[in-house]
Order: sequence, then structure tokens, then C-alpha cells
Amino acid sequence: MNRTPLAHTRFLSAQDVAAIVTRMGAATTLKRMADYIHEDFLRWQDFDKCARVASHSAGGVIELMPISDAATYAFKYVNGHPKNTLVGLPTVMAFGVLADVATGVPQCLSELTLTTALRTAAMSAVAARALARPDSKTLALIGNGAQSEFQALAFHYLLGIEEIRLFDTDPAATEKLVRNLAHTALRLICCTSVAQAVRGADIVTTVTADKTNATILTPDMIEPGMHINGVGGDCPGKTELHPDVLRGAGVFVEYEPQTRIEGDLQQMPQDFAVTELWRVLNKTATGRTHESQVTLFDSVGFALEDYSALRFMRDAAHELGMGEWVSLIPELANPKDLFSLIRPVAAPTLSGTRYATAATSHADKRELALAA
Amino acid sequence: MNRTPLAHTRFLSAQDVAAIVTRMGAATTLKRMADYIHEDFLRWQDFDKCARVASHSAGGVIELMPISDAATYAFKYVNGHPKNTLVGLPTVMAFGVLADVATGVPQCLSELTLTTALRTAAMSAVAARALARPDSKTLALIGNGAQSEFQALAFHYLLGIEEIRLFDTDPAATEKLVRNLAHTALRLICCTSVAQAVRGADIVTTVTADKTNATILTPDMIEPGMHINGVGGDCPGKTELHPDVLRGAGVFVEYEPQTRIEGDLQQMPQDFAVTELWRVLNKTATGRTHESQVTLFDSVGFALEDYSALRFMRDAAHELGMGEWVSLIPELANPKDLFSLIRPVAAPTLSGTRYATAATSHADKRELALAA
Repeated sequence: MNRTPLAHTRFLSAQDVAAIVTRMGAATTLKRMADYIHEDFLRWQDFDKCARVASHSAGGVIELMPISDAATYAFKYVNGHPKNTLVGLPTVMAFGVLADVATGVPQCLSELTLTTALRTAAMSAVAARALARPDSKTLALIGNGAQSEFQALAFHYLLGIEEIRLFDTDPAATEKLVRNLAHTALRLICCTSVAQAVRGADIVTTVTADKTNATILTPDMIEPGMHINGVGGDCPGKTELHPDVLRGAGVFVEYEPQTRIEGDLQQMPQDFAVTELWRVLNKTATGRTHESQVTLFDSVGFALEDYSALRFMRDAAHELGMGEWVSLIPELANPKDLFSLIRPVAAPTLSGTRYATAATSHADKRELALAA
Repeated sequence: MNRTPLAHTRFLSAQDVAAIVTRMGAATTLKRMADYIHEDFLRWQDFDKCARVASHSAGGVIELMPISDAATYAFKYVNGHPKNTLVGLPTVMAFGVLADVATGVPQCLSELTLTTALRTAAMSAVAARALARPDSKTLALIGNGAQSEFQALAFHYLLGIEEIRLFDTDPAATEKLVRNLAHTALRLICCTSVAQAVRGADIVTTVTADKTNATILTPDMIEPGMHINGVGGDCPGKTELHPDVLRGAGVFVEYEPQTRIEGDLQQMPQDFAVTELWRVLNKTATGRTHESQVTLFDSVGFALEDYSALRFMRDAAHELGMGEWVSLIPELANPKDLFSLIRPVAAPTLSGTRYATAATSHADKRELALAA
């Protein structure tokens, strides 16, 4: 059978992606992923931004997030099940596909659980590079769960953050973070309250996990010139910031219609002014207006970031020769002859028997006998 | 690292699915798949029937079709690119996932190109079993393309059809079908016109490929008591039947809102009466009312059929020990410690060096040196 190499899909398992990051180094991985995101945000208007499709159940939600430009289509499958950790599973798991718009062939199928943590951190750094004071050196990191190390490293490697002030309501989470980042040059300072962690920080990242309308940051904690990177307020009913924190800041978002529903912005009236980040990146809108302005990136995670992350992982896997080619799509000598995949093997002999029975079942052999 | 076997996904490639069908036999495969579809249609109201999400481009369309009940979620990725055969690719390619609603874990990832042809044929047979005259013996098969052999076998094995009268505008397509089914007990008769093929047939299947408003069947061809299985009219702008054929028949559909847009029904006024097939199967609606009534199944392919087909393939793969376990989702000793996937390996030595550099990159080694 002729091969149709066009129809092969590169499969990247969770182990493959972990190996890519380990071989490339976390610093290079985060920097390059941030470049991919930045590049794609600059051509924001090339993308067909579909709605996400959610299927809600008692225990959680399963969502499909598709996006496409003229050349490449991507979608992410992602769940959210708060009680998963009780059975040893991550709360959020994801995978996704990059496909060729011209033919529909799925080119790359990849895990996106680890990748999503990396892309969220890279996205936070892209926003902070555009919005935080350039001399920022200290970060307060409120919430030290599964995503926190990635946030810490992205700000370390991409913004030159040297000191991180940590707080979590669960001290074990903070201990885990400190253990996980002990190999870096970061100064990690454990704090006993949000207020203590935030005091004097140039940048504040909130990445807490509780699915409630929490008030992690209150206006009294906010200092002039701070940049707030709000990551954990990312779905209806899940917020982290007091509304007055938003009122006192220049607020920047990924995709406004989505953030109005999912972000901390959900607390604000519909006419509360925000700026889409891509406009700041392409210089059609102003970011920070002055040294002492408070800026806020109300991050929720947009399909375009997964598109960029998948694109990066595909390219990195190609460079490093990682992953496995799989046949998600059948290879056909004649694309109009799908049945050839299950046709009993033809034996070109001179005898009266035209069809051999190789690889056919007992049932099919009986049929052949009847047909003879 | 402890394994979390919950997080493994069974991967079924195109070769795996072809091997399942070959080992099980086409007859058993089609019969069992039809049983799965029938069973799921009987509990129609258990399903959350989401809209399909389409991304259109100049060359075709890529769609996601999700569906869920309280226990299992499924989605299908499917494209439609009419010019694909010019580059050696199928026009329609598909894959899909079955996931656990309780946790969001993807349990089975399977090719669905071959599977979709099988499920469409099985669905046609389920409908015909409920609607066609029980003494039906002859089928006219109009359109002898990629799906035609599957249709022929489903009617042979599930309805006892013994004679099939073939027509296609491309004689090579008909020759391919005859070659592919030469091993069966079917009497295959090549005809030179639609009218010749249809004359005297108990059941007429139209499964033509042209994306146009074609008129394959006209009222003069229809005989009392016929069952029409309309498969090829399945998206906006693609129909096969003269509107008077619908007017003269009892019309049955999968999911009415979808068929009004995609089926041959798209030609009819909004108040044209149809019956959803699941009501006939669960006996809350009447199917055929009398011997000489003309019945029409206006098939477009509904997400529930893919759900059933995925469920069948997962079970069949389990029985036969087919497929491969892949890690689409990372396995974590502590599900809250995602970073452990890329953390430099800890070396529990008594020296001052707490972290070994195994499996880390050159860049990370530099970082370790700096951190030391």
C-alpha cells in the first residue's frame, strides 16, 4: 500500500512533553513559548475566535476550545473537576490537536496538562513585560498550587525577578514550591499572610484554586506602580480581587467577551472599561501610562494561547526528534476506497479461488465458503 | 512514581480498528454496532445534545461534535474537504474521544474515519429494520463511493438483503464495489441508470457525494411500499431527493433541529411533519403505517451515533486486547505537584548537593551551577 505521509499525526504524550522541557531547559522553553504567544497576539485579527463549548455535570465541566487562522486549526479538550485530587488525578487535565486547515489532517496531537501550566505562565510574563514597571525585581505569589512554580520561573527568566514572596493558606503547598525551586537562583521568602507577601512587591500574582468569589486582594494592599497578574479568577463564580482593586487599576484582558464572563471582570458593570492586551502589544493602545499607575492583567486563558503552545510544542518536538508518528487517519492507496482497509486479502493466483482468507475471521471464512 | 491507572487512555489507530473489524468479521461488527446504536437511541432523553461547532474555510470545514450522558462524554473531530482526493487523502477524516464524566479522564481515543462509515451503515440498517417492509429482499444502491460497501454489507447482514442493484455516474466506482464485495453471497447487478436500478427495489439507498442540490430520485421512480434510505443529503446545499419524494413519504429523522438544516428536509417548509426515529424504536410513535406506504429515513449522522460507535470500539478493543495504552494525561504521585514532571531529579545524598542533574539540559545545568 502506498503511504500518504500527509496523513501522519505526531503524538506527544505527557512524558514526551516533560522530556522536551527537560532537554530544552525551563528557561528556553518559557522564553520561546512566550515568543510564540507574542507573535500570534500581534496577528490577533487573523483568527476565527469561536466560542468554547462546555458540557457541565455534577462533578465538573468538560470543554472544547477551538480556534483557527487561514492555515492552522487548533482545539483543546480541558476538564475541571475540583474533587479529582481525592482520587489521585489532577483537577485540570487537557490535550489538544493542531490541524491543517487546507486538508483537515490532524498534524499534532499533544498532552496539554503540563503545556497549559507553561503557556499560562508564559502568557502572564508576556503581559507583565508590556505592563509592569521595567525595574520590577520582586514578585508576591499568592497561591502555591500546581501552577505556581511555572509562574515563578516565567517571571524569573523573562522579567528578571530575583525575589518571590510566597503565601498559601496551606503551608504544605508553599513547602512544595520551595522544594521544587530549590535548584534555581530565586530568593524564596515564605510569608504568613497575603498582606505580608504583597507589601513592597513590584508584581503580585494571584493564582489560588478555590472555586468561590474570594477576596484575596483588597484595596489597602495595593501600592502605587504595582502590576497585578490575576490568574485564579477564571470562571463564573471564581474571583480573587475586591472590585475596588479593579476600579483603581488600568485593566487589561485577553479576549474581552470571554473575560467579562470568566474573569475578575465578571464582578464589574458591562461598561467598565478594559483594554485587550493585543492592542498594547501592537502599539495601537497604551499600556502603563505612568510609573505610579496600578496595572492589572485579568487572565482567564484564551484558546489562542493553546494554539501558540501547540505550535511551539510541535516545532520543539520536530527539532528534538521527539514524539511518535501515529495513524489517527487511515492511509489509503485510493482515497475513495475506504473499504480496502477491511477487504479480505486478494490472492492473484491462476486457480479459480480469487480471494485468500488471510487475516479474516472464522465468520468471514464461512461467508467465503458460502460464496464459493 | 506511583501509577494512576485511571489516567491511561486506550489509543486505537486506523490499523487497530481495521484489525478489530477483520478479526471480529464485518457481519458481527455491524450487528453489534447496530445494537449499541439501538440501545442508545432507546435512552435518547439521557443525552445532552450540544450543537456541533464548525470552522469553515475556503477548502472545507472542520467540526467538533460533542455529546454526553451522565456517565460518558464523547466528541468527534471531523473534516470535509472535497478536493482532498486530489492529494491522496480521504474527503472525510475523523477521530474521537470517549471520556469519563465523573473525572474528565479521556478513556479511549480512536480513529473514526473507518468507524464513521461503519456506524452510518449500521444506523441505516437500524432505521430500515424499523421502517422497511419486513420481506424486503432487494436494495438499489445509488452512489458507489467510499461508503457504499458498508451500506451494502449492513443491509445484507442485518436485513437479509440478497440482491443489490448498483448505479454510479462513475463506472469505476461500481467496479470497485463489485470487486470489494466479490467474496460475499450478495448478487450484485450493475445498472445503467438510476431509474433502472430503482425499478422493483424494496429499499433504495442514495449515498452520492456531489456537494450540490442534486435530484437523484424523482417521484416517478418511487413505488408503493418502498423504503428510501437517504444518506448523501447531509449538509446545507447538499441534497439528493426531489421535494415531492419527501411529500409522498412518511419522513423519519435522527435529530429534527439538525436535519432541518442538514438533511434533504432543508428543502421543505419548517412545518413539514417528520418523526424522530428514537420514538419509533421506543414505540411512542408509529413507523410504517401500511404495506404500500413509502417511508424515508433522511439520515445526516448525529453525534449520538459516534458515541455509540466509540463505545462499541472501546469494548471490542478490550475484548480482543487491541490498541495501546498512552499517557495523554500525566501520572502524578501527588496530583497537586504538576511541576514534579519537569523538576531536576532529587539525589538523596549526604553531601551538600541536594539536586542531581540527571536528565537536565545544558541550560539547566548552568542554572544549577549558578544556584550552588
